[in-house]
Amino acid sequence: MNYFEESLKAHERCGGKLSVVSKMKIENKDDLSIAYTPGVAQPCIEIHKNPENVYRYTSKGNFVAVVTDGSAVLGLGNIGASAAIPVMEGKCALFKEFADVDAIPICIDSQDDDVIVETIRHIAPTLGGINLEDIAAPRCFAIEKRLQEELDIPVFHDDQHGTAIVVCSALINALKVVGKELGEVKVVVNGAGAAGTAISRMLMDIGIRHLTVCDRFGILNRQEPEKLNPSMLALAQLTNEECLSGTLADALKGADVFVGVSAPGIVSREMVASMAKDAIVFPMANPNPEITPDEAKAGGARIVGTGRSDYPNQINNVLAFPGLFRGALDARAARITEGMKVAAAFAIASLIPEDERGEENIIPSPFCKEVAPAVAKAVREAWEKENR
Amino acid sequence: MNYFEESLKAHERCGGKLSVVSKMKIENKDDLSIAYTPGVAQPCIEIHKNPENVYRYTSKGNFVAVVTDGSAVLGLGNIGASAAIPVMEGKCALFKEFADVDAIPICIDSQDDDVIVETIRHIAPTLGGINLEDIAAPRCFAIEKRLQEELDIPVFHDDQHGTAIVVCSALINALKVVGKELGEVKVVVNGAGAAGTAISRMLMDIGIRHLTVCDRFGILNRQEPEKLNPSMLALAQLTNEECLSGTLADALKGADVFVGVSAPGIVSREMVASMAKDAIVFPMANPNPEITPDEAKAGGARIVGTGRSDYPNQINNVLAFPGLFRGALDARAARITEGMKVAAAFAIASLIPEDERGEENIIPSPFCKEVAPAVAKAVREAWEKENR
Repeated sequence: MNYFEESLKAHERCGGKLSVVSKMKIENKDDLSIAYTPGVAQPCIEIHKNPENVYRYTSKGNFVAVVTDGSAVLGLGNIGASAAIPVMEGKCALFKEFADVDAIPICIDSQDDDVIVETIRHIAPTLGGINLEDIAAPRCFAIEKRLQEELDIPVFHDDQHGTAIVVCSALINALKVVGKELGEVKVVVNGAGAAGTAISRMLMDIGIRHLTVCDRFGILNRQEPEKLNPSMLALAQLTNEECLSGTLADALKGADVFVGVSAPGIVSREMVASMAKDAIVFPMANPNPEITPDEAKAGGARIVGTGRSDYPNQINNVLAFPGLFRGALDARAARITEGMKVAAAFAIASLIPEDERGEENIIPSPFCKEVAPAVAKAVREAWEKENR
Repeated sequence: MNYFEESLKAHERCGGKLSVVSKMKIENKDDLSIAYTPGVAQPCIEIHKNPENVYRYTSKGNFVAVVTDGSAVLGLGNIGASAAIPVMEGKCALFKEFADVDAIPICIDSQDDDVIVETIRHIAPTLGGINLEDIAAPRCFAIEKRLQEELDIPVFHDDQHGTAIVVCSALINALKVVGKELGEVKVVVNGAGAAGTAISRMLMDIGIRHLTVCDRFGILNRQEPEKLNPSMLALAQLTNEECLSGTLADALKGADVFVGVSAPGIVSREMVASMAKDAIVFPMANPNPEITPDEAKAGGARIVGTGRSDYPNQINNVLAFPGLFRGALDARAARITEGMKVAAAFAIASLIPEDERGEENIIPSPFCKEVAPAVAKAVREAWEKENR
């Protein structure tokens, strides 16, 4: 199937992907008097008396905005707010299908951080959460941080943390297959943008101790601050303990794990061959990975996972964000904590039973119905435990 | 039925009123590849190439934001953004039920005009239209004007124009019943806020020539500018041709028509008795009218219409806004013109056949299924005629 052609046809046929429907029927005078005037005055009055009642009488508690400025859309780059709409609508559709979250696309016609933060802040009254999407690094870091500081609802940049959660899930199971420990393996992350930064930080949260991050110019080294922007420097200060310099090829020598969120074809069979025995390789550049699974295997990799659905071990964000928001909304969490993300990663990993775990089965399918409820439960419990 | 109690229960049971659903099914890998990655890249690319394609491949063309700042909600006053949510959700539900328009509530946490205008402007990429709601006068006038100047989608303040359209519909038929002409009757509008101002202007658009507007301090008179804010002064310059001063009671002497959008109980039986023969009285203060229909009839009114569903001749905005937006969206109109509003008013009036028209039947029921399609058709044709 030509997905591009079929997608264009389907989008035109459906007139976009979203529809907003009423949960109350409005078929007669009584219905109208309950859903609208005069009856609707009563929930308004109750909310005015006690603002907490907004969660009781409105859709806020299940409403999430999928927010972008169109600055880093898929692999298409800075295509702007309007051209980003199909992706945001898609994300909203996934929220509904996978976790019964009601999500609306908000595409902001500005790439000024202040404008984005102020705009979202001002429309927050109807929202129970904010999913940031496809906002370019390093701006995404500041926008997420500022919004979370201003709002008492979860703010979550999926390109960062959604990806990080699912990579961690896959790695947890892959290490079990090859019989290595989180605290002992040497991991190389290639890509120091939104996803690479979040993956690196979360790998440390789940127990990785030996981590090297590379960008297109090579290994991030805290002793070379002139080569690094502030977010990269912060990352370098937490990684590359031996302060090595060099290329990605240098970093990979003897490494146990490669995680790529960078560019197609930049890892060679020889580079994989230089890694440690039973290497784990996650080349996740989309749609074309850093190295094809076949080449990686030929280079000696034992486990390979990509972002693609046509190879085994698809590392797909859809495993994380729907259940994560479901759990956060159910808990009425004020934010998404590190503990909630770690809980989500382990919950996803736990859905592959030990006797089914294997080189080509380290992570559930996106359509596994148990994933979102399991993630939601783990995330909710993590929040409740942290806020007991 | 106690609507207030039932409404509270229904809102809690349903968890608010709105749900966002996907129009494309997402049940397997192919569905996911069409609705989301990788296929979704294609509509993005097409929109990036030609911005007009946003109407072809996204939900924008059917998406309307119902926007408030919570400054003038129902009869409850300035209760703020969060407490206004039930009303906005209700409006969205009505948009869907009556005209298949997908509407989302946007409640802005600021009552600063600049903030409101900027916020809405920046989230406009996903929107096909803006319905302003429950924003206090005179701020609503400037906000509507500024937004419409900045955006190429319809911006419509329903409290003004929706009410005005339906009042005009009711008056068109009422005058036929009593055998009087639009250009000859003397009309008194009491209330110079959002609704009163828009009603007054629209009455002139449909052909009323003798019009007096009162506020709580009496007749608006252009010779007393010190008593008037700028929007009232503008109105005074178009009305009260004889530059009379005085009270509402003075204005009503000999008047053919009273339109009240003011406060309960301020019109007495004696004031109605002082009006011309076959008086038409529309006391629309909600939920308690300026004079009860029984009292108005006792005072000699021949036709009475209110905002309430428990009396004949309910003058209800829901007759106008769903079909109006349906027509404007179908025409992809850039704004709502005076001609479109006038066309809507006559379309609603025309749905009462001549042989059924009578003192207690001047306007269709809100549940008359023919209304929204008829309004949509008239509005679309009006736009197309003006832009041929």
